[in-house]
Amino acid sequence: MSSVGNVSPKTHRFSEPLMLQSGASMADYTLMYETYGQLNAAKTNAILICHALNASHHVAGTYADHPSEVGWWDNMIGPGKSIDTDRFFVIGVNNLGSCFGSTGPMHTNPLTGKPYGADFPVVTVEDWVNAQARLADVLGISQFAAVMGGSLGGMQALSWSTMYPDRLKHCVVIASTPKLSAQNIAFNDVARQAIVSDPDFHGGDFYAYNVVPKSGLRVARMVGHITYLSNDDMAEKFGRDLKAADYQFGFGVDFEIESYLRYQGDKFSSYFDANTYLLITKALDYFDPARKYNGDLTKALAMTKAQFLVISFTTDWRFSPERSHEIVKALLSNTRDVTYAEIDAPHGHDAFLLDDARYMNLVRSYFERLHQQLDQERA
Amino acid sequence: MSSVGNVSPKTHRFSEPLMLQSGASMADYTLMYETYGQLNAAKTNAILICHALNASHHVAGTYADHPSEVGWWDNMIGPGKSIDTDRFFVIGVNNLGSCFGSTGPMHTNPLTGKPYGADFPVVTVEDWVNAQARLADVLGISQFAAVMGGSLGGMQALSWSTMYPDRLKHCVVIASTPKLSAQNIAFNDVARQAIVSDPDFHGGDFYAYNVVPKSGLRVARMVGHITYLSNDDMAEKFGRDLKAADYQFGFGVDFEIESYLRYQGDKFSSYFDANTYLLITKALDYFDPARKYNGDLTKALAMTKAQFLVISFTTDWRFSPERSHEIVKALLSNTRDVTYAEIDAPHGHDAFLLDDARYMNLVRSYFERLHQQLDQERA
Repeated sequence: MSSVGNVSPKTHRFSEPLMLQSGASMADYTLMYETYGQLNAAKTNAILICHALNASHHVAGTYADHPSEVGWWDNMIGPGKSIDTDRFFVIGVNNLGSCFGSTGPMHTNPLTGKPYGADFPVVTVEDWVNAQARLADVLGISQFAAVMGGSLGGMQALSWSTMYPDRLKHCVVIASTPKLSAQNIAFNDVARQAIVSDPDFHGGDFYAYNVVPKSGLRVARMVGHITYLSNDDMAEKFGRDLKAADYQFGFGVDFEIESYLRYQGDKFSSYFDANTYLLITKALDYFDPARKYNGDLTKALAMTKAQFLVISFTTDWRFSPERSHEIVKALLSNTRDVTYAEIDAPHGHDAFLLDDARYMNLVRSYFERLHQQLDQERA
Repeated sequence: MSSVGNVSPKTHRFSEPLMLQSGASMADYTLMYETYGQLNAAKTNAILICHALNASHHVAGTYADHPSEVGWWDNMIGPGKSIDTDRFFVIGVNNLGSCFGSTGPMHTNPLTGKPYGADFPVVTVEDWVNAQARLADVLGISQFAAVMGGSLGGMQALSWSTMYPDRLKHCVVIASTPKLSAQNIAFNDVARQAIVSDPDFHGGDFYAYNVVPKSGLRVARMVGHITYLSNDDMAEKFGRDLKAADYQFGFGVDFEIESYLRYQGDKFSSYFDANTYLLITKALDYFDPARKYNGDLTKALAMTKAQFLVISFTTDWRFSPERSHEIVKALLSNTRDVTYAEIDAPHGHDAFLLDDARYMNLVRSYFERLHQQLDQERA
C-alpha cells in the first residue's frame, strides 16, 4: 500500500448560474477538486468523495511544496488501499462556501467588488450536490461507481441517491444521520454564537478590517471537538492528567485536556474561515430529506436506486448508531440492497477518519465486490 | 403541602481568617444564608443544603418584595414536603465566591479598596465546606442531621462526610460524581474560554469599566445548559421545531432549540457574575477527594461515619449513574450504610431539581426514617 504521491488541485469555473435552495443563485463560481487514479474508457470507475465540516478536496496524497499536507482520507485511498486508486478514479471536491479554494465568503462578490462576507448565500447539502453534479458533467461522468462520505459527507452521498438516482451505482454513508437532533443543532448554535459575538467578526465583514474572529472560532472549534471524541476515549487519552505537578489555582491550563482543546482551537482559528463555519453548520442543521415528506424517511428514500453501504461507530455520540439505523430501516422498507456495519471502535465520531482494521477491511471488501461488479458488466 | 412562605436572608461576618486550599486566605468574609423551620432544643434536627453552580442560599420560600423568586428546591423543602420544615431546621448558604450575597469577586477587596475581580482567590469545594462548618459553629450546630446537595452540592455533602465525619449523621449525594471526567472539564473550559476572551471581561476587572462580558457568559451558559438536559428530553421538547413556517436561510433563529438556549443564555448573563462562573467551574474541576490517595476512592472515604443516600438519574449524561456507582462501591467497600437509587427520569442532569414522584417520595421516606431515628435517640 502506498500513497498516490504528490497531487495538484484543479479548478473549474462555472458561468451558468446555480439556483440555490434558498431562492438565491450563484451567477458565477469555481470549484476546486483533485483526482487520483485513471478514469477508464467507459467512464464507469469514478468515485466521488464528499467532505465534512472542516475538510476539503485534498482527500489523498501530498503536495510537492507541502509534503506534510497529507489528504484527510489518505489512510483509505491510494494504490492498494481500501479504495484502490489502481482500480478507481477518485474525485475530491471542495464545496461551495468552504474556504479551501472553491468560491466562498472570502472571495470577491462580482456584484460589489468586495468579499462576499455575510452576503454569501446560505448553501445546503442539496446545493452542493447540484454543484458536484455539474462537475461530474464537466468530467464526462454520467454515473459514479460510488458516491461516498462520512458525517456531513454522508449526507451529501445520501442526497445523491435521491436527487440523482441514476447517477450512482453505490452510495456509502458513514457516521452520518438523516437529520440533526435538537442537541446537535444546539451545539452548532453555541459555535455560531461564539463566532458572531466576537467583535472581530464585524457582522461577517471582518476581511475589510484585516482581522479574524479568532476567539470565536477557537471556542467554536473547542466545543465541536468535544462532540467528535467519545467520553471514554477522552478519559483514556487525557483523563485528569495535569500539565504541571499540581493544581495551579488560577485560570491558565491545569489539565492536559484543556491544553489539547485550546491548542486545537488555536490551530483551527488560524486557518478556517468564520463565515464558512457559519455556512457549513447551517447546511448541517438544514439537512432533512424527510422534511418534505412529513418526516417520512421511507418516502424520502423511495426514489433511490443505488446499492448502499452504511457504517456507524458504537461510541459516536454525535451521530450515534441509532441514527444510521433510521437510514437502514427506511432503505430496507424500500427493499433496497443495504450492507450495514456497526464498528466497535473507541474513537467516537472521529472514528470515520481513523485507522481501524475492521473498518478499513470492510470498505476494502465492499469496493472489491464493486470492482468485480464493474468487471462483470464490462464482460 | 405548602411553602415556607416569605423568608429573609441573614448574613454573618467572619473576621477570623479562612485558610484556603490554594495557600491563600480570606481575611474577612461574609456568608449569606437562610433558614426554614425551627432548630430543636437539642439542636439535632438541622439539615444543611449545599448549592450547585448557579444557585444560592435561597433554597425555599419566596421574598415579600419578590414573590416570584421561589427558592430553587422549594418543591423539595417546606411544611409537609419531602424535607418537612415542620420537623427539620433547614439551612441554605451561599458559597464564598458566588454572586448572591456572600463575599465574592464583585465585593471590595479590603487590601485594595477595589472589587476583587481576578484577585479573588480560587476556592475549592473543601474551602466551602470549611466556611460552612464555621457557620454551623455560629448557629450552635455541632452535628447536622443531614448534609445534602445535588451536582456540585453533592460534592460538598460528600466532602462533609470526610472532612467532618462527626458533624453529620446523614450524607445525601444527588446527581453527583467523585470527580469530573475529561469531557466534563472540557465543557467547563469551553465556557471559561468564552468568558475570558470576551473583550468586556477586561481580565476580570470589568466592574471598573461598568460593563459585563455578556456574550461570553451567554455562550458559557448555552453550552452548560446543553449538558444539563438529556438528548431525548431535548428531542421531545424541541425536536426540529421551527420558530417560523420555514427555514430562514440566514443566521438568526431557525429552530426553537436555538431560541430557547439563546434566551437562557441572555437571562443568565443578565444576573450571573463572570468571575464567579470561572471560580465555580474551577471548584468543580478540582474536586477529587481520591487524589491524595493515589486515586483510591475507597481509601478517601474510609474516615466517613455518616449513613448515605446516593441518587442518580438514568438520563443524566453529565454525571451519569456510573459516577454514582463509583461512590456507592467505595462506601460499600468501607461497609458504610448506603441507600442507592437510580431514578428512571427523562430530564437529564436537571432531574435533581425537578418534580418526579419517585424521586420526591424516595427523599420523603428517607427523611421520615431519619426523623424516627432522631425521635428514638431522644426517647
